[in-house]
Amino acid sequence: MELNTRQNEILDIVKENGPITGEQIAERLHLARATIRPDLAILTMAGYLDARPRVGYFYSGKKPIQSVADGMVDMTAADFQSRPVVITENLSVYDAICQLFLEDVGTLFVVDQQSLLTGVLSRKDLLRTSIGRTELDKIPVHVIMTRMPNIMYCRKQDTLISVAKKMMDSQIDSLPIINEKEGGLEVIGRITKTNITAAFLSLAEDHDL
Amino acid sequence: MELNTRQNEILDIVKENGPITGEQIAERLHLARATIRPDLAILTMAGYLDARPRVGYFYSGKKPIQSVADGMVDMTAADFQSRPVVITENLSVYDAICQLFLEDVGTLFVVDQQSLLTGVLSRKDLLRTSIGRTELDKIPVHVIMTRMPNIMYCRKQDTLISVAKKMMDSQIDSLPIINEKEGGLEVIGRITKTNITAAFLSLAEDHDL
Repeated sequence: MELNTRQNEILDIVKENGPITGEQIAERLHLARATIRPDLAILTMAGYLDARPRVGYFYSGKKPIQSVADGMVDMTAADFQSRPVVITENLSVYDAICQLFLEDVGTLFVVDQQSLLTGVLSRKDLLRTSIGRTELDKIPVHVIMTRMPNIMYCRKQDTLISVAKKMMDSQIDSLPIINEKEGGLEVIGRITKTNITAAFLSLAEDHDL
Repeated sequence: MELNTRQNEILDIVKENGPITGEQIAERLHLARATIRPDLAILTMAGYLDARPRVGYFYSGKKPIQSVADGMVDMTAADFQSRPVVITENLSVYDAICQLFLEDVGTLFVVDQQSLLTGVLSRKDLLRTSIGRTELDKIPVHVIMTRMPNIMYCRKQDTLISVAKKMMDSQIDSLPIINEKEGGLEVIGRITKTNITAAFLSLAEDHDL
């Protein structure tokens, strides 16, 4: 439900002047009291305004219902990101697995000597490689990682909605947040489905759902 | 936004008798036209009713624009669940890993001969066990799984908000959806952070955010 221009005007008047009676609001708008009655009813029902008999209307201060949508649209990757865990291309698969457990993450990002993104390693990639092999310390990660340009990524100002869509569409659990640099992509953050779950929960908690 | 009693009465009248004028609605309610004007405005703005000049009000048939908040509160585990993948206690770790890749899931649920939940195996548990070992076909999963009563679970009617909270609080990626049975818990579904991400996205898409 979107507010129309007149309803927004009324909201501004009450914010600045409340408590204020319906008569007084109508007067400021050069309208009849009857004309703005539906608008006042809507603003009150939607929770923007409170009304007290013999006192008038005042701004509820409560977040109106609509703002769950607004809250959702405003969320960016930067708001919910995690710290990225990066490793170098010549690290062994064994050490990569240790790193994964040590940092308790599901995905490792691989960078070159200029700290630019060259690959991604998931828990699944590491599990696939480790089945039935003992010499994991002999295999460098660059042999098994997913390589650029086949890596999905996002930027810190991207909306969380677009990030969630990218993860669902490509069926991946995690995206690096990158910064474009001369010659490549610098990894500056990480977004996972855990972060999206946290965002979902924060929407509910911020609005007492 | 909740409708009050009078608004629900109006909605019923229009559903049965529409198109119907505001005058006629007021008459049926033994009220003045002016009295019900705010209610009609609210019902029209919220999308329950459509109004045509010189014809009257009729039921839009559209689902009223449910607020994002209402949509979120109404989501249950059942609405977004995935199919659970279950294995038996004596399956080898090697076969469990194969099953994990075959079904492309992150978590396997372990059941006994009565199909009751006895354990959970995550990708992380399997990776930890498989590092540097070759005889994975000799280790049964019941040796490495997380056992009841240390398993978090939910029911299909649980709100998705409560499920998300449970996953975040216990730092786990997936919950079995269970049905209480004589003697234990039957696994009937699975909820993951991927499902929560899908729910987050569906909220955005249903409301054109």
